[in-house]
Amino acid sequence: MQKKANLILASKSPYRAQILSAAGIQFDVHPSVVDERAIEAPLLRSQMDVNDIPLILAQTKAMSVSEKIRDAIVIGSDQTLTFENRLLHKPENMEEARRRLLMLSGKTHNLNSAVALAKDGEILWQYIDTATIKFRELKPEFIGRHLARVGKAALTSVGAYQIEGEGVQLMEKIDGDFFSIMGLPIIPLLNILRELELVDG
Amino acid sequence: MQKKANLILASKSPYRAQILSAAGIQFDVHPSVVDERAIEAPLLRSQMDVNDIPLILAQTKAMSVSEKIRDAIVIGSDQTLTFENRLLHKPENMEEARRRLLMLSGKTHNLNSAVALAKDGEILWQYIDTATIKFRELKPEFIGRHLARVGKAALTSVGAYQIEGEGVQLMEKIDGDFFSIMGLPIIPLLNILRELELVDG
Repeated sequence: MQKKANLILASKSPYRAQILSAAGIQFDVHPSVVDERAIEAPLLRSQMDVNDIPLILAQTKAMSVSEKIRDAIVIGSDQTLTFENRLLHKPENMEEARRRLLMLSGKTHNLNSAVALAKDGEILWQYIDTATIKFRELKPEFIGRHLARVGKAALTSVGAYQIEGEGVQLMEKIDGDFFSIMGLPIIPLLNILRELELVDG
Repeated sequence: MQKKANLILASKSPYRAQILSAAGIQFDVHPSVVDERAIEAPLLRSQMDVNDIPLILAQTKAMSVSEKIRDAIVIGSDQTLTFENRLLHKPENMEEARRRLLMLSGKTHNLNSAVALAKDGEILWQYIDTATIKFRELKPEFIGRHLARVGKAALTSVGAYQIEGEGVQLMEKIDGDFFSIMGLPIIPLLNILRELELVDG
């Protein structure tokens, strides 16, 4: 039997919960309430590589929830899209999604997926992985039809696409780990959870 | 709207159908009835690289169905697992699945995923992709518990695992395309379907 784990996912992302569940992991969900943009702002003004910002956010989310729930192991995670050295967030509406896809058309962008574990407010482990996605040249009319098909789902991810859905229709080439693209690098996470005896070894 | 396509999947694999459906493709399913082992036997005795055998099988399946259903574009596909230059098939029972996982433990194996398109008995296009998976060192007791958890699902794939399920618990490292590992390299397939104007471009 899978061992009972006092494991908490500090994220409200259904994709991350689904990856953990599919892998056979038992956990509870307690989304963190940190103001991500407020943490990010000074980092963006610093000399920090934009690709490393999700690592800071993943740690902050894990720490903040673990300070409230003693003895639990808390998983914090974050994913950003970086494009031409700029950091992009989830599109807020369909018009922004349309502009996002048009901007990424024919170009390559990075998805940076970070995960951190914390206990009692201390970071135990952290990991970041970058995947690279090249979009094919998309006609504006195609983008319009595509977004009409996928609807509001386009607003649930930084790239305005789901790789596990029609998002593959946008892509020319994927380099990197599928789970990182989905938002949770599950294999390194399982390795550390196994070491901590939170999953069956 | 997605264009109506006279597209047929010559496979009874639910995983392949799911990948196509998720990508927003409309198709019918007509599994081929070719005797795969009979086709394979002389190939195994030949000088052919075992990694290339699924390409022959994918073509054969696509051709055989397309000869029966005129004017349709037929997708044939095949996946094999090669390990130490041997070709392995789906385990037939749980004991064979157990031995398969024990054999792959701590080692690296290849998943070769081929896809071919045929029309009126002629091959239009073909593609093969190899992904490499390294298993972690698995204790026999873990394998027993793992197979008890996943059950008969272990018998539905050549590696006795599902990467989209608890199979990730077996893995140390995945190199290659997720969709190829699932059994259908969807991005190159979409490229050719777009050229053939069978999917929206």
